[in-house]
Amino acid sequence: MSARPKQLHVNLFEMACVSHIVHGMWRMPGNNRHRMGEMAYWLEVAKLSEEGLFDAVFLADVIGTYDRFGAGDAPALREGVQIPNLDPLMLVPAMAAVTRHVGFGVTFSTTYEPPFAFARRMATLDLLTGGRVGWNVVTSYLRSAAQNFGLDDEIPHDRRYAIADEYMDVLYKLWEGSWDDTAVRNDAAAGIYTNPDAVRRINHTGTHFRVAGPHLVQPGRQRTPVVFQATGSPAGLEFAARHAEVVFIGGQTTADVRANIARTRERARAHGRHGDDIRFIVMAGIVTDTTDALARKKLEKYQQYYSTEGALVHAQAEIDLRRYDPNERIGDVLRREGVTFGNMNRRFRPDQTIGSALRQIATFDEGRFFAVGSPTTVATQIEGWLDIDGVDGINLRQYHSFDTARDFIDLIIPELQRRGRYRTAYTPGESLRERLFERPGQARLPERHFAARYRDPAALHAPAAPLFPDEPAPSPLSKAS
Amino acid sequence: MSARPKQLHVNLFEMACVSHIVHGMWRMPGNNRHRMGEMAYWLEVAKLSEEGLFDAVFLADVIGTYDRFGAGDAPALREGVQIPNLDPLMLVPAMAAVTRHVGFGVTFSTTYEPPFAFARRMATLDLLTGGRVGWNVVTSYLRSAAQNFGLDDEIPHDRRYAIADEYMDVLYKLWEGSWDDTAVRNDAAAGIYTNPDAVRRINHTGTHFRVAGPHLVQPGRQRTPVVFQATGSPAGLEFAARHAEVVFIGGQTTADVRANIARTRERARAHGRHGDDIRFIVMAGIVTDTTDALARKKLEKYQQYYSTEGALVHAQAEIDLRRYDPNERIGDVLRREGVTFGNMNRRFRPDQTIGSALRQIATFDEGRFFAVGSPTTVATQIEGWLDIDGVDGINLRQYHSFDTARDFIDLIIPELQRRGRYRTAYTPGESLRERLFERPGQARLPERHFAARYRDPAALHAPAAPLFPDEPAPSPLSKAS
Repeated sequence: MSARPKQLHVNLFEMACVSHIVHGMWRMPGNNRHRMGEMAYWLEVAKLSEEGLFDAVFLADVIGTYDRFGAGDAPALREGVQIPNLDPLMLVPAMAAVTRHVGFGVTFSTTYEPPFAFARRMATLDLLTGGRVGWNVVTSYLRSAAQNFGLDDEIPHDRRYAIADEYMDVLYKLWEGSWDDTAVRNDAAAGIYTNPDAVRRINHTGTHFRVAGPHLVQPGRQRTPVVFQATGSPAGLEFAARHAEVVFIGGQTTADVRANIARTRERARAHGRHGDDIRFIVMAGIVTDTTDALARKKLEKYQQYYSTEGALVHAQAEIDLRRYDPNERIGDVLRREGVTFGNMNRRFRPDQTIGSALRQIATFDEGRFFAVGSPTTVATQIEGWLDIDGVDGINLRQYHSFDTARDFIDLIIPELQRRGRYRTAYTPGESLRERLFERPGQARLPERHFAARYRDPAALHAPAAPLFPDEPAPSPLSKAS
Repeated sequence: MSARPKQLHVNLFEMACVSHIVHGMWRMPGNNRHRMGEMAYWLEVAKLSEEGLFDAVFLADVIGTYDRFGAGDAPALREGVQIPNLDPLMLVPAMAAVTRHVGFGVTFSTTYEPPFAFARRMATLDLLTGGRVGWNVVTSYLRSAAQNFGLDDEIPHDRRYAIADEYMDVLYKLWEGSWDDTAVRNDAAAGIYTNPDAVRRINHTGTHFRVAGPHLVQPGRQRTPVVFQATGSPAGLEFAARHAEVVFIGGQTTADVRANIARTRERARAHGRHGDDIRFIVMAGIVTDTTDALARKKLEKYQQYYSTEGALVHAQAEIDLRRYDPNERIGDVLRREGVTFGNMNRRFRPDQTIGSALRQIATFDEGRFFAVGSPTTVATQIEGWLDIDGVDGINLRQYHSFDTARDFIDLIIPELQRRGRYRTAYTPGESLRERLFERPGQARLPERHFAARYRDPAALHAPAAPLFPDEPAPSPLSKAS
């Protein structure tokens, strides 16, 4: 145990859309979310995050529409729920150009685009930013997304994870194995820019992908960007145990959260990793002001703008809960109507009443990681998250851009700093990985991570065991050979 | 005819590698090319280009290695010939973040990545930059590139163009047809961000692609980025006639150049376009100083660093010309050895002697569009390119970063401005398309361009005739259905 109290890691949770996760708030006067198509908006997000000494700006993404509530795409469009939605990869270089320290976590799906191109994009970002990038690995869950990439429907969940596992294998070979650290010589006198003996093709031939290499980008500070992932399913947990460095966890109660963390650490140890090789992050909602009373007043003001309809759209709910008896239980209604609840099952239980679910939505109540109050009140709650729940940090959800971040910076951070719970400066030249793990000098993945095997060129020719060995058929994305 | 003399359009020709096109020059003292992995390098490129009132920074790209000269990848790596090579798409947002006017032309291949994702990336860039982006459409010519994307070898040339034609069709539907200009309402009082009636799915079902949509990004200033293309083959010419707005042309002589331009314009007219709907750009080499004598001295200094080996690598030459009798003709040697000349055939004729080809390489002599001398000498030559050859502009090749651009800005531009041959300021808020065509207010493709048909939603359901109707089999990239 460290003598120093555990410090909070903070990512600003963003998405290049008007209504990301707290729906309807874009309508609030003074909210800048409608400016998300302007370069200036993102440069301000970046500068604000750096002013707040945040770990990173974290960019969510989705590549289809939420089309199950109501008539196709219309409700999502009307509400601005994750459409329009810009490509987050294009935002990172712009934000990096005007900052020096803050990191960037960017969401990208392993399901629809070729690994060689993505490996090159992320390696370019890692190089240009001096090691400030992380990647949130997702496998994409919308049928509407699948239909944008030539498929009729989603690839089944566990199969997506099997594809993702091989995708990671290809990326690691390119990022960790294709170029030695000594490859770039830049020796003008000898006329040698790169030492060819220190670069190699990967010649990956797997179930889903064939990639020759060599990687086109020389190694950046981190080589492999910090691997973020959200778990939930058994396949997702196993994937995280092998690959993830930062895991987003849910859980309405301390017991749930602690169990999630313990289970993930246990599986990571089974993969030869250390328990503290993974950081655990929760999405948190914080509404603060100088006093508890003012903070509650601010919350009430925010709540006036919240859109329940937006929440139902985002949840992919196939029914409009507002039309049912509030005393009925959710599970009963779903059974009777023969519909599904979309993503709602992540937040609500079948035995909950419709009335309580709607109240929960309308009040922003996100359970354990929702704090409303003065800096003292909120900071005390945050200390509980760190010490009692055992999480390492938060993705700060935004109710108002840029007031949510501004309030957090002006009010919460000074209080956390007074308590020794937040950094007081960036460490110059630090990579995102060094910052997240507080391991100075360790910008690269630890030797015990799966990817590190490819630092030995011989490993490039010894196929790694897939994580999900029962996966039989090749991906529909496999190319004809 | 305009009363004003024709003005020169200028793109700075760049690529995110050490040795792009004038090989060996990275070894020259004071050259900054080895810094191409640094963010600061690209921000300087952008600011310098904006200082020079250039139309755009033009970024070349390649997604494999030049592996035919010598032993595989080794010579290319040693010489830094287009490897390491960063992803150019990642450079544009960074450069855009620190500039307000200069445009960006970025190379991307239609052969290996799904159109939906690329449509979104470019639309994001067009939106964020206020319409400052262009896209250089290529189909990728290296076998080593194909092998990075699951294929054994290149898709045959004409088939690549047939795939590219459908790729464009998908993009146009997304860019021009999926969102009306009036779609984004941003009406907080009414709670309507986007009017759903003004957005639609494209439901493209073709030979090579199936893409449902809707497009995820609201329209930017240009919608479709300016379409750049290099022609050469008959298929390429036809493709340019339908799609391209800026065409890179080669030609060693005025007669060649004029014939290329006339032929392309004629084919464009056959597609219902106007002759002046296409701009013609040549790659030009310019070495200048205050006097002719000093400019020649500078050239001699540059020539000392030139690498013939780098040129042979880049040419994909299968033989080392330096090992043969300089008096032999190239064609005879190739026949005898049973090898190909790679891309060399673009620059040299089979009846040329090996000695003359090697001399041409070593002296940088690029034929008609190579000017060495004082500002007066060079400006007069440039006026000839505009008035005699009939080109509209140049991609300025760099011998030295940043001296080549610096010299051009400090010496050539003032002289061109004195002659009324170069803008004296940017027009604020102008899109790249308006700048290139000198058509203020026309940021969008003209109504007579193929893409414009999709502005009528009905056209989304009426399949367009493919440009190459004989193309039979689906692309190996097509997804299982």
